Amino acid sequence: CANPVPTPSVPAPDILRCAYMELVVTDLERSRNFYVDVLGLTVTEEDENAVYLRSLEEFIHHNLVLRKGPVAAVAAFSYRVRTPEDLDKAVAFYTELGCRVERRAEGFTKGIGDSVRVEDPLGFPYEFFHDVEHVERLAWRYDLHTPGSLVRLDHFNQVTPDVPRATKFMQDLGFRVTEDIQDEEGTVYAAWMRRKPTVHDTAMTGGNGPRMHHVAFATHEKHNILAICDKLGALRMSDHIERGPGRHGVSNAFYLYILDPDGHRVEIYTQDYYTGDPDNPVVTWDVHDNQRRDWWGNPVVPSWYTDASLVLDLDGNPQPVIERTDSSEMEVTIGADGFSYTRANDESGSYHGQASKGFKIGNQL
Amino acid sequence: CANPVPTPSVPAPDILRCAYMELVVTDLERSRNFYVDVLGLTVTEEDENAVYLRSLEEFIHHNLVLRKGPVAAVAAFSYRVRTPEDLDKAVAFYTELGCRVERRAEGFTKGIGDSVRVEDPLGFPYEFFHDVEHVERLAWRYDLHTPGSLVRLDHFNQVTPDVPRATKFMQDLGFRVTEDIQDEEGTVYAAWMRRKPTVHDTAMTGGNGPRMHHVAFATHEKHNILAICDKLGALRMSDHIERGPGRHGVSNAFYLYILDPDGHRVEIYTQDYYTGDPDNPVVTWDVHDNQRRDWWGNPVVPSWYTDASLVLDLDGNPQPVIERTDSSEMEVTIGADGFSYTRANDESGSYHGQASKGFKIGNQL
Amino acid sequence: CANPVPTPSVPAPDILRCAYMELVVTDLERSRNFYVDVLGLTVTEEDENAVYLRSLEEFIHHNLVLRKGPVAAVAAFSYRVRTPEDLDKAVAFYTELGCRVERRAEGFTKGIGDSVRVEDPLGFPYEFFHDVEHVERLAWRYDLHTPGSLVRLDHFNQVTPDVPRATKFMQDLGFRVTEDIQDEEGTVYAAWMRRKPTVHDTAMTGGNGPRMHHVAFATHEKHNILAICDKLGALRMSDHIERGPGRHGVSNAFYLYILDPDGHRVEIYTQDYYTGDPDNPVVTWDVHDNQRRDWWGNPVVPSWYTDASLVLDLDGNPQPVIERTDSSEMEVTIGADGFSYTRANDESGSYHGQASKGFKIGNQL
Amino acid sequence: CANPVPTPSVPAPDILRCAYMELVVTDLERSRNFYVDVLGLTVTEEDENAVYLRSLEEFIHHNLVLRKGPVAAVAAFSYRVRTPEDLDKAVAFYTELGCRVERRAEGFTKGIGDSVRVEDPLGFPYEFFHDVEHVERLAWRYDLHTPGSLVRLDHFNQVTPDVPRATKFMQDLGFRVTEDIQDEEGTVYAAWMRRKPTVHDTAMTGGNGPRMHHVAFATHEKHNILAICDKLGALRMSDHIERGPGRHGVSNAFYLYILDPDGHRVEIYTQDYYTGDPDNPVVTWDVHDNQRRDWWGNPVVPSWYTDASLVLDLDGNPQPVIERTDSSEMEVTIGADGFSYTRANDESGSYHGQASKGFKIGNQL
Ligand SMILES: [Ca+2]
Ligand SMILES: [Fe+2]
Ligand SMILES: [Fe+2]
Ligand SMILES: [Fe+2]
Ligand SMILES: [Fe+2]
Repeated sequence: CANPVPTPSVPAPDILRCAYMELVVTDLERSRNFYVDVLGLTVTEEDENAVYLRSLEEFIHHNLVLRKGPVAAVAAFSYRVRTPEDLDKAVAFYTELGCRVERRAEGFTKGIGDSVRVEDPLGFPYEFFHDVEHVERLAWRYDLHTPGSLVRLDHFNQVTPDVPRATKFMQDLGFRVTEDIQDEEGTVYAAWMRRKPTVHDTAMTGGNGPRMHHVAFATHEKHNILAICDKLGALRMSDHIERGPGRHGVSNAFYLYILDPDGHRVEIYTQDYYTGDPDNPVVTWDVHDNQRRDWWGNPVVPSWYTDASLVLDLDGNPQPVIERTDSSEMEVTIGADGFSYTRANDESGSYHGQASKGFKIGNQL
Repeated sequence: CANPVPTPSVPAPDILRCAYMELVVTDLERSRNFYVDVLGLTVTEEDENAVYLRSLEEFIHHNLVLRKGPVAAVAAFSYRVRTPEDLDKAVAFYTELGCRVERRAEGFTKGIGDSVRVEDPLGFPYEFFHDVEHVERLAWRYDLHTPGSLVRLDHFNQVTPDVPRATKFMQDLGFRVTEDIQDEEGTVYAAWMRRKPTVHDTAMTGGNGPRMHHVAFATHEKHNILAICDKLGALRMSDHIERGPGRHGVSNAFYLYILDPDGHRVEIYTQDYYTGDPDNPVVTWDVHDNQRRDWWGNPVVPSWYTDASLVLDLDGNPQPVIERTDSSEMEVTIGADGFSYTRANDESGSYHGQASKGFKIGNQL
Repeated sequence: CANPVPTPSVPAPDILRCAYMELVVTDLERSRNFYVDVLGLTVTEEDENAVYLRSLEEFIHHNLVLRKGPVAAVAAFSYRVRTPEDLDKAVAFYTELGCRVERRAEGFTKGIGDSVRVEDPLGFPYEFFHDVEHVERLAWRYDLHTPGSLVRLDHFNQVTPDVPRATKFMQDLGFRVTEDIQDEEGTVYAAWMRRKPTVHDTAMTGGNGPRMHHVAFATHEKHNILAICDKLGALRMSDHIERGPGRHGVSNAFYLYILDPDGHRVEIYTQDYYTGDPDNPVVTWDVHDNQRRDWWGNPVVPSWYTDASLVLDLDGNPQPVIERTDSSEMEVTIGADGFSYTRANDESGSYHGQASKGFKIGNQL
Repeated sequence: CANPVPTPSVPAPDILRCAYMELVVTDLERSRNFYVDVLGLTVTEEDENAVYLRSLEEFIHHNLVLRKGPVAAVAAFSYRVRTPEDLDKAVAFYTELGCRVERRAEGFTKGIGDSVRVEDPLGFPYEFFHDVEHVERLAWRYDLHTPGSLVRLDHFNQVTPDVPRATKFMQDLGFRVTEDIQDEEGTVYAAWMRRKPTVHDTAMTGGNGPRMHHVAFATHEKHNILAICDKLGALRMSDHIERGPGRHGVSNAFYLYILDPDGHRVEIYTQDYYTGDPDNPVVTWDVHDNQRRDWWGNPVVPSWYTDASLVLDLDGNPQPVIERTDSSEMEVTIGADGFSYTRANDESGSYHGQASKGFKIGNQL
């Protein structure tokens, strides 16, 4: 990329996993209803300004913080690091990059101790912590399970204009790429990267950014995801379903995207694969492959490409959004100028400049 | 309706259930591959002109006949009747209506004996039989099961211009309505009707007809349907997926629509409810209810409304297609003139003349 | 059989399906907790003496009545008939047989009108009704679903000393046998019989009787049954699990047997097959087939063979229990004198007088 | 423990995960049929002496080697290490412990390069390798999936007389304990330990050893495991089912134990939880807790406690089996001298010296 983030001379902190997201919501009661009563996340603690939520198999204090605020946005993408000393490394790493860095021994949220927050080179508010309050892992508490039980926080997804630049930076931070989407000219549309040995702890999606594309929770089985759809239907909230359910090409996971009351996107996700070996094969998808985003070739709704949440700086102000100048995945794959195929080099399974059987959204337009 | 089919003075045959469909396909080998190698139906018998297929829990000779022919079409919607004498009743019933009736003691297909075929008052080729060869019920043969096992034929779906006229006739034939879709003026867009105590043995869908909308097979569980999608993706045949998977509003069943090599539509369907009591409550859906066709509010692709298979007369010639003059469900619910809602009387959940959050296909256009 | 019940000269009532069971329980609050809080049945109505419960897809007032009483027992096996006139037929049918018959225009329970109760020739308290209050069918109310949702009442199971005698009587009452268990000498150990087109509305199990073996509710999928086990474990109530989960040989259904606080046995059951054709093939199992009761060959616990609930006469007194004189299924298949095989005629898969690999309970003793 | 293995002064190799087991089988064709035709593992390569198998999501050459030999046994528990240099560390680590160590640059099996095999201090044949041939990850090949698809190798389980001694040694090797079973006196009956962040890569089960208790493969969902049972029933091989299916207390996973034609035990396993944080809470189960081994309280068959496979030394000779002198889990929990409870301190849910409702196997004896 043209303007690479320099590789720091100091070691990166040893990140264990994505741990929680802090979401600013405009109506705390309405958001609490969505995440607790509809989705079934467990309240670890709450007060009038914030609700601390966790998934059923979690033993740390929270995986999601809903904090009341004037503008819907993301206040932190928070990762757990292996040791307390990794916080020193995080400070040195980002300081060398000239980033704004803030460390609080008492933490930024309840339940978590010594923490470092930064405005990272890509404009995202990242947090690192090790010290955390343990709470009951509810894995065996089947009396609390619901048909759509969320058992783990799985990953984040970030929107950024320059995916190769972001990927290179994340690799410096110790992440490994597992899959990506490219075109024949090498334009990268999105990349998935991990610390824990799943397909990702976060992904970089090409688009106007920095913005937050989604936060993903895992279920045990596919029917749990279908049950969430069924319940949203029963509650006459089906307009909160944005895309899916479906099978991803990328990651091979089963998925659903829903929108919370502020439009923050939440993915429900299950059954990707083990990626922990250092030589884990990277899967590169052709952006024109009609099955990359949905293995069944079902269309990606345009809002999924265009909409995302603002992210905040460390003062709590929204970061300015910078336009992507590389090709847009939506534009190169959907509609009059787009091109997608179900079977490479097969006229009847491909689309080029006009509708084809292989391209369902073409049929719909 | 304006031009009702008269109610015959003689009793209707006692129909047990929809039993099989005879499909004319233009490339027998290609269709055999689709139904046997991809969908996993079992070949009971075959020759160079026809393949006789059954589902895993069936004990009669077949649930589907693929017959080679010049024009893709449906040659018969076939129902099993309770006794041999019901064939006499069928002859009398349709004869009184002035329909063309043909009876063959040796049957029209292999495996089936004495049969009656008619061109019914709606233009559909209906068959009735009782005598049939028993074959092994493969229910316990889990060594033959596949991830997408089809265990039963569930129902047919027919396209006809005048749904109330068709429904009245089918009630005379002994069917009971379980659900329908209407608007506030009483226009009926579709109706579901049954003999066996499920939601339907056949449905009448308003549109240009007589045509065959789909034939539906049942699986045991929802994951079996997802597995069919996954397999179609793996075979790079995802363009055979037309709509779904999803949860129906009508019938409450989980569904998927796929297209065979000739474009004949097949539904995979599971988990509707018991309807066998004579006072089983009829469910009437508002045509503007965005969850009636998909409980999750996912859009119905236009082809699902417009495309259907020709049906043949008893000479094997396609029946002429008569245009529907009543309102079109697609037109009243999709696009610039359409109107749909997720929550009745809720501005944010409704669509009227312009895109709304509650109406996903509006967002896509 | 030696002492057959005569076939009445009058027609039997037209029975639609098993509809509800009235259970006498000794601690109403404890039983309510079991059926409502643990199993998730829906309370239609309740007072200090009785709780009226229904499954999620039911539209009639109840499928189960818990009534407080001094002795745990069954007060009624209740069936719905097609028309009000079928009650007259029921009265005539049982009166001709010399049975005690009681008819109440106002019904025996809330929510149900004109009803007939009898002490049948086998000693069971049978009820017939048509008139019933309709309530909301909760099928679409996924906001009320639980991981172990019970969606339908499926069947009863009765213990009776002479199975052929009971079967002959039930056939006179209009039931059709779908499966049975016999030995090579023609001793019948159990038989399954149906009105609605599933494997059964009731079964006759050979043993000391009249007693009630179990009442069965259906789920949609197998994981729903597993979820009930998981929840019982979480509540430290796993000692309520008596047998299973497993796959039946007979019926091919997936099953679980649990015991309520009074020891009344409840089966949770899913995915048997369609049996509605008059020539539906009857499946006869060899009593020595180790997979007949559990397709996986897992042992049947002895209590499942020996324990059952008392049934009441129309005065509310327990019917005397008459001993079975035919061979006992437990004795001919388990332990030192028993004989079972996994593969017929295969030494390594069979057991005769001593432990074998093919017979797990032998290994356990 | 009395005779601890000394902690080496050199660092342990950095183990990624359990990678494959080499099984000696006495009839290669019969074993191939079991693992390939029945269980659906994929043949990567084979010759007349060995079959190399992998699971559907694997990208290394194999997860299981079946090698023809005179005595059924385990030739290697093989782990992948992070780098080639970790092999040097393995050599140094075991050499310091005085273990027999053999290194082969060309590997011990096809598809794998430079490898180290050792006779470890507990008597087990352990292998370490990094260099391996990559093969196609079949995750997306749903056309190859079966109802019981095995997607990953999950873990090994070893029988050893002194569990604390084994655990201390494994911790020196870099493993972390996630769960264990103890009694009130501190006797340890079993311990689970992991490198990858699941509940385990291997477990130590107290008993006469060194022996191999089982090797476990993962499925995506619970119904996949049930499908394996159903298929074994259909093939009249249900006597290969030893225990389960069920829900583990320990690990919270859903499980099944089956026996291959030589009696090697294979577990099918799904849905344990993430354990990758260094402070992951260790779960200690009371040996008398009736739900520790099966969350539903279903009995553990005695063979599961007593039977296990021999393991070989590096010359291919079976290691002598040393008797456990600590208490036996079977003896302290089953039968006349045993004691188990469903609810601690609850008479009706506990068993002590005599049968109780809370202890099903007691009822069976
Ligand atoms: Ca465009
Ligand atoms: Fe995602
Ligand atoms: Fe349909
Ligand atoms: Fe039953
Ligand atoms: Fe295990």
